Amino acid sequence: MKEVDLISVGMTNFGKHFDKTGRDLLIEAAREAITHVDKGIDMKRDVKALCIGYFTPDLFEHQGHIGALSAEWLGLSGIPAFRTESACASSSAALATGYFAVASGMYDLVMVAGVEKMTNLDTPGVTNALSIAADDVFELTTGITFPGLFALMAQEYFEKYSGSWEDLQTVTLKNHHNGSLNSKAQFQAEISAIAEKTAIKKGVTFKDEMDFLKSKYNPLVAYPLRLFDCSPISDGASVAFLTSREISKRFTDKPLHIIGVGLGTDTISLSGRPDLTTSKATENAAVAAYKMARITPEDIDIAEVHDCFTINEVILSEDLGFFKKGEGLKAAQEGRTSLSGDKPINTDGGLKSKGHPVGATGIAMVHEIWLQLRGEAGKRQVKGNPKIGLTCNVGGSSASAMVFIFERGEK
Amino acid sequence: MKEVDLISVGMTNFGKHFDKTGRDLLIEAAREAITHVDKGIDMKRDVKALCIGYFTPDLFEHQGHIGALSAEWLGLSGIPAFRTESACASSSAALATGYFAVASGMYDLVMVAGVEKMTNLDTPGVTNALSIAADDVFELTTGITFPGLFALMAQEYFEKYSGSWEDLQTVTLKNHHNGSLNSKAQFQAEISAIAEKTAIKKGVTFKDEMDFLKSKYNPLVAYPLRLFDCSPISDGASVAFLTSREISKRFTDKPLHIIGVGLGTDTISLSGRPDLTTSKATENAAVAAYKMARITPEDIDIAEVHDCFTINEVILSEDLGFFKKGEGLKAAQEGRTSLSGDKPINTDGGLKSKGHPVGATGIAMVHEIWLQLRGEAGKRQVKGNPKIGLTCNVGGSSASAMVFIFERGEK
Repeated sequence: MKEVDLISVGMTNFGKHFDKTGRDLLIEAAREAITHVDKGIDMKRDVKALCIGYFTPDLFEHQGHIGALSAEWLGLSGIPAFRTESACASSSAALATGYFAVASGMYDLVMVAGVEKMTNLDTPGVTNALSIAADDVFELTTGITFPGLFALMAQEYFEKYSGSWEDLQTVTLKNHHNGSLNSKAQFQAEISAIAEKTAIKKGVTFKDEMDFLKSKYNPLVAYPLRLFDCSPISDGASVAFLTSREISKRFTDKPLHIIGVGLGTDTISLSGRPDLTTSKATENAAVAAYKMARITPEDIDIAEVHDCFTINEVILSEDLGFFKKGEGLKAAQEGRTSLSGDKPINTDGGLKSKGHPVGATGIAMVHEIWLQLRGEAGKRQVKGNPKIGLTCNVGGSSASAMVFIFERGEK
Repeated sequence: MKEVDLISVGMTNFGKHFDKTGRDLLIEAAREAITHVDKGIDMKRDVKALCIGYFTPDLFEHQGHIGALSAEWLGLSGIPAFRTESACASSSAALATGYFAVASGMYDLVMVAGVEKMTNLDTPGVTNALSIAADDVFELTTGITFPGLFALMAQEYFEKYSGSWEDLQTVTLKNHHNGSLNSKAQFQAEISAIAEKTAIKKGVTFKDEMDFLKSKYNPLVAYPLRLFDCSPISDGASVAFLTSREISKRFTDKPLHIIGVGLGTDTISLSGRPDLTTSKATENAAVAAYKMARITPEDIDIAEVHDCFTINEVILSEDLGFFKKGEGLKAAQEGRTSLSGDKPINTDGGLKSKGHPVGATGIAMVHEIWLQLRGEAGKRQVKGNPKIGLTCNVGGSSASAMVFIFERGEK
């Protein structure tokens, strides 16, 4: 098994790109990834294959056959190319496929990418498109969609452990703080700034951030989750280049080594799960990734954790072994997951604040780990020279999970 | 790079399964693949990962997240699982992914599968769903769909080389003959039998098969292609198990070795291609697969070649190097691609007669190679103890192509 390195990443700004198609976004992300290759890359000479995650181009753009289409638009027509899908973990599936292909020795350099162009549809349209990540036969027929599914998890978590919706706002506040330091984030604003702006616009006053978060300006979506507990509708794309370790030096002296890869699944319908406060898919994926990397959760310096809804960051931070079951919310409240904590999570603002173009999210997580481990994260750079980072990207109501562990190359 | 073996295959009957969903079809194919493992398989113990091709469950079943869903319905919830998409080559992409995963040493046994449940939609609905394999922006806006795209190829082929639509009927007749010998085929009938049935039903007479094929009962779809030049709308699923060669003996003494893997792409829009009578994607894929297998086209004993439309079998048989450019049609007319020819193609009836549930087609091709190389193809068994077989599965208007070469295990 060949060892695999990450030699560059790139991504678009996340947000509403009304004037761009999915292919436009891909090219924009690819351009950045190309410029980020320290010693340069010749796309036509070096890129041997392309694997691209996109959840539902079918519904968002009436477009399939994304592998061949993307190769063409990147000027790479001719090379092996296909798409992977695992709902909101679609680009992590591309990363896994690229990893397998390089590790096997089949191709020595693979481009992996993720795209989602969501704003072609209105909000009900997007909610309907995303709902195909749940079970059409046994869940959607009840009328439930994703905010409702995660609301059930939140309710069970609060009932089983201590904690309340108010406590959960720690995650909202933290991720908006981090997002305010990220020029690629969809919402580059603290909750306090959003509250202030709302107050001026509506001619009202808020005592503090919590007063705003409890107000009608943060409406209930599915009890107990409110608007600011939910990640937004976003357009965006992300790209990474993987090589065998044997050749990575041609491209950079500062690669990240991919030292752990783990994938897992769970029942797609919540009705099949004995406990909604834990994700079996994530546990399986994490166990496999730690075992492969021969490390433990304590060794992880920073992590990107799939906060499609605030409650999920808390649950997954436990399933990843960072905190004991039922203690993730307390850990967040103690500031342990903040930029200056001992286990910083979602330093880029997370899906909550950075945005969540679902197919692009997995590799966008890798983008942040790349910056942080290379010390290039600017105003949000974590102190202490982090060396090992983890991404945890899940699909649907965590029915699939993919975990990757990266280590800074220089010793 | 670990060597990879195919240890079993299974598939549903192809055709109209109005009473079954995609997941039902998958399970039916999996059951057969399980019973085909000579020494038995324990799914929960042995299957380490699942990769499943399905072109557009989004449009056909309002269902995504197919990896996790399929793992659950197979009783394998927990294992790594995701979907691949490359239009009509979606399950070949799953096969490639499974190949990479086993070859890398990541998993020692991977289940790969393909599904398409097309009959939920009416014919215009299916045509629209399939059209997303073409370029939505630059092709579909002109009103063209796939019969039209392949009709353009046929027109250019006939203009550039000799040949006519009448000549092309060799392929129709051959594939219906082969399909008449395949109990899993959607149309298990010679064209002569279909003509006879039509004559009785409509109270008309036909001089011969060609008289029927030229009649209004074989209507023009897109000049020069008529109804019987087109593969049908089908439901179906297909499954294969891959292992590292190190462990294949645990499961069978008669594995097939996967000795060649090649993938290629071309511009998705026909407007980007200088010559419509050749598929660059297929040429690229074939060159890579032959190089890896260290063989030449002459060494291939039997082949499954993507005949979504009759003209495509001819074009691809040239791009695969079986015949010189412009000589594929003549070779078919000389009977060289028939069951008793020197290069039998589509011994199972091909997409034309066996059916074409698009996401299931790639692995269904592998199913036929499995039977033929093991001498288990019954009435359609090719003589001469074939040892090396090839599958060529393409997506859309051959904008992506995947070629696999299999060799019988025992020496």
